[in-house]
Amino acid sequence: MTLLFVSRMDEPEVWRNEFAGRLPDLDFRLWPDVGAAEEIRYALVWRPPRGLFQGLPRLKAIFSLGAGVDGLVGMADDLPPGVPLVRMVEHGLNEGMAEYVVWQVLDWHRDGAVYRAQQTARRWVKHPALLARERRVGVLGLGVLGGCVAQALAALRFPVAGWSRTPKQLDGIDCHHGPDGLLSVAARSDILVNLLPLTPQTEAVIDAGLLAALPAGAVLINAARGRHVVAEDLLAALDGGHLSGASLDVFDPEPLPADHPFWTHPKITVTPHVAAVTLARTAVPVIVEQIGRIERGEPPLHAVDPARGY
Amino acid sequence: MTLLFVSRMDEPEVWRNEFAGRLPDLDFRLWPDVGAAEEIRYALVWRPPRGLFQGLPRLKAIFSLGAGVDGLVGMADDLPPGVPLVRMVEHGLNEGMAEYVVWQVLDWHRDGAVYRAQQTARRWVKHPALLARERRVGVLGLGVLGGCVAQALAALRFPVAGWSRTPKQLDGIDCHHGPDGLLSVAARSDILVNLLPLTPQTEAVIDAGLLAALPAGAVLINAARGRHVVAEDLLAALDGGHLSGASLDVFDPEPLPADHPFWTHPKITVTPHVAAVTLARTAVPVIVEQIGRIERGEPPLHAVDPARGY
Repeated sequence: MTLLFVSRMDEPEVWRNEFAGRLPDLDFRLWPDVGAAEEIRYALVWRPPRGLFQGLPRLKAIFSLGAGVDGLVGMADDLPPGVPLVRMVEHGLNEGMAEYVVWQVLDWHRDGAVYRAQQTARRWVKHPALLARERRVGVLGLGVLGGCVAQALAALRFPVAGWSRTPKQLDGIDCHHGPDGLLSVAARSDILVNLLPLTPQTEAVIDAGLLAALPAGAVLINAARGRHVVAEDLLAALDGGHLSGASLDVFDPEPLPADHPFWTHPKITVTPHVAAVTLARTAVPVIVEQIGRIERGEPPLHAVDPARGY
Repeated sequence: MTLLFVSRMDEPEVWRNEFAGRLPDLDFRLWPDVGAAEEIRYALVWRPPRGLFQGLPRLKAIFSLGAGVDGLVGMADDLPPGVPLVRMVEHGLNEGMAEYVVWQVLDWHRDGAVYRAQQTARRWVKHPALLARERRVGVLGLGVLGGCVAQALAALRFPVAGWSRTPKQLDGIDCHHGPDGLLSVAARSDILVNLLPLTPQTEAVIDAGLLAALPAGAVLINAARGRHVVAEDLLAALDGGHLSGASLDVFDPEPLPADHPFWTHPKITVTPHVAAVTLARTAVPVIVEQIGRIERGEPPLHAVDPARGY
């Protein structure tokens, strides 16, 4: 069995070793050394080059290295018909995302930037703080990642509301859906977390209108895709004082250009797309299980619906 | 019924208003305006002046405004015999402490200082991260606060070990006790959190020996009392490279003097004793309930054992 690994972002040897330990018969090939293309049955990819799949006539499935498949769905003309495209759903990604969002929510909730500035100035000043139970958080996107994040925040006693395109129910989360639901969630979110999939419907969803719907002094945390946010509208909301801050892990384009105003904005925390990383040690067991399903003739889990976009 | 409020740290009007809403008959007196001293039945205090209690002949209980009573126990000669001294146990304090420790643990766990420095330099570099389940945390002190903190960390999947003077059992926490247990917990703690009460036995417990027992690259978080930590030993362990960092909320003395090396140390995060604050809105209901118990002839909860020191 042959798998083609296609990524310019990941260390291929780490992945090769993980597969070797779990599927010793696997022929692990590293793009661009494709070898005999008709032998490739599986592709594990992050931002593959255009035209790649046309050259792989006997492909059984394409596994995305990332949770978000907007890059792949966006090159739909390139996807071979009838070959399932599979999203990455693995506990390392879910847990990493929950950690990142809880970290950033707490950093705003507990005035991290204020206390760091005071430390630099050697100033001992206490500021009144709310408890988590007094700080409302909203989560946009209640898929696997959004659901994990919402529940990690609720475990710390933040009152959490969530929004998804279609109706959902999650224990302890105040769930909303549809266009009206989006504005209701925004209006009660002291901290708004974006974990939506990027689709034509969600692109630029965080614009001046949505930001204006947030309570005064709100904070935005974006750990989904840069193109969800209209950068100029975010800067205007921060500079106008309606928003207190933003934590941004994703940008358009990436890497964030050195002259972009986000880097130096006093109210913005920038991290370089590290909120949640697909780790070979947690993802390979999942891929091996998916390959097993396909080899037994079962459909893979978490296949993308191209019409829906995720 | 008369209560004397004694604090130079808290806003007395906030407390007066909370009591007025819940115990309208209470005569709330603000030290130093004691009035007729024989009318005072209850004292609610933070760092009271020496000799205060001798002038209050009909005191029924002393309530500490803080969770730590080392300041009060340390002036034991001053405490009227037979009058219970009551620790502050209220959910706002527990939750605030859990939030603070989770925040600081995540900030080290997710390389907060590294990414902030990169943002300042406008550098886009990703660093490999462990998952919470791969980062061992130790909690010294498994009382009310330590127990809440340990369980909040465990909910995020950090493997948590705890240490207490006497044996304890907490769901999901690897509990140790006694002198040998202290070193075992230290040896498996990538991040060590101190929440011990300050007593003659725990003063200076975090010294060169304990710090040397931590794994290389460990981090210390101290949210208990400054005198638990030997400052010179901590600085030596940081400067020698054995420790990666420390988050310190408590100091000896407080406020931390402006010329203290902690303020400017590149591996130290300083916060001004704000980890957990007793809030009037969450504490007054508890004090009102404690007064009710005493008035009905029942013993108050969470009375301090002076021999034990907490």
